[in-house]
Amino acid sequence: MAGEQVHQHISKQFEQELESLRHRVLVMGGMVESQVADAVRSLLENDVALAEEVIANDYKVNAMEVEIDEKCTEILARRQPAARDLRLVLAVIKMIADLERIGDEARGIARQALDLGTRQPRKNQLGELEQLARQVRSMLHDALDAFARMDVDLALKVVEEDKVVDQEYETIVRQQITYMMEDARNIPIALDIMWSARSLERIGDRSCNICEYLIYYVKGKDVRHISLEQLEQEVQR
Amino acid sequence: MAGEQVHQHISKQFEQELESLRHRVLVMGGMVESQVADAVRSLLENDVALAEEVIANDYKVNAMEVEIDEKCTEILARRQPAARDLRLVLAVIKMIADLERIGDEARGIARQALDLGTRQPRKNQLGELEQLARQVRSMLHDALDAFARMDVDLALKVVEEDKVVDQEYETIVRQQITYMMEDARNIPIALDIMWSARSLERIGDRSCNICEYLIYYVKGKDVRHISLEQLEQEVQR
Repeated sequence: MAGEQVHQHISKQFEQELESLRHRVLVMGGMVESQVADAVRSLLENDVALAEEVIANDYKVNAMEVEIDEKCTEILARRQPAARDLRLVLAVIKMIADLERIGDEARGIARQALDLGTRQPRKNQLGELEQLARQVRSMLHDALDAFARMDVDLALKVVEEDKVVDQEYETIVRQQITYMMEDARNIPIALDIMWSARSLERIGDRSCNICEYLIYYVKGKDVRHISLEQLEQEVQR
Repeated sequence: MAGEQVHQHISKQFEQELESLRHRVLVMGGMVESQVADAVRSLLENDVALAEEVIANDYKVNAMEVEIDEKCTEILARRQPAARDLRLVLAVIKMIADLERIGDEARGIARQALDLGTRQPRKNQLGELEQLARQVRSMLHDALDAFARMDVDLALKVVEEDKVVDQEYETIVRQQITYMMEDARNIPIALDIMWSARSLERIGDRSCNICEYLIYYVKGKDVRHISLEQLEQEVQR
């Protein structure tokens, strides 16, 4: 092959590698999404078998993180990417760390489901948690969707939603404290619900992280730790 | 300069860059350590001004993370490191993310200190938290020390200590639940202590992460998500 052709061949191969890397992240994301969905369902429907399944499946998410991480290291060592390609690999390294921790939170919720066991929470205690779970799951889904479509506007929307999730979380905590104060017999259930709400709130935070890495990748600027207004300006730039 | 000399010059410069990178991580680590120490002290000694200082200083830790992260990206782009040098840069990228989150946990503890305010916890309620804090701070200190000296044996020791910290955390949670059940007026204080204990337990987990990245760097093998026995074998290899 002539020099130019060899170059084209290599760069095509490299593109495919990056594409396959993105694909793996999305597969891992899908796995984590269903772990979160199952964990929440096990808690709301008091499904012990499902909770145990979530806990048993966590190792798959961990293994996926290690596998993708190794792939990233290999690309860095072999391809020595620059500029945008380098940013993609670095964004992926950080994203999968957050996805793995979201998997840990799902396992945590499943453990709360086991702890809740046969205790009967009040209907409205779970209702609010269900609402929080719905919002957080949609944040996670949108974060992964934003990454799939490289959509910074959607990523920004996710970050904006986090404020609402934080408020709902605070509401649930205050409410559970009230139930505890009313009757000491409510304490164990209220704590299970508080811990689960906290895990959900964390999943929301981590979905935001994923969006920030995406914005970093697309825009080439680190947007962590800046205000929402600054972030909005960066995305519009 | 002759070719060989130029090469030596560049590699010397590169070595200095890596050395300066390690140095910055240790400076950031020191900053995070004192944030944790101050947060714990603000809680134990009911020092509102100190708690506010910890919260106000968190941005410095965040800024340091962004700065070191940019330096890492620059090294990857300009120096295209391989093998051990590449592993160092990747380990640093992950370490500073954990250090930043430890900073967040310190801020969380300071917030609990503000929430605790002038409420008077029982003497022994804080005593156990103090003991947990002492152990977790020593884990964090040893993790940073292990990184400074590239000491995998010390890193392993930190990971081994985490089991004890987890048990102490569980003990504190169970005890606080007992206090809550005894008297509803204990609930707010008990919750503050439980959340603070949870933050400390997380700081222990993240100190372990730092040690795992160090072992990865020195040994060239990803040691996350493996059993303690497997980890011990890896380090001895």
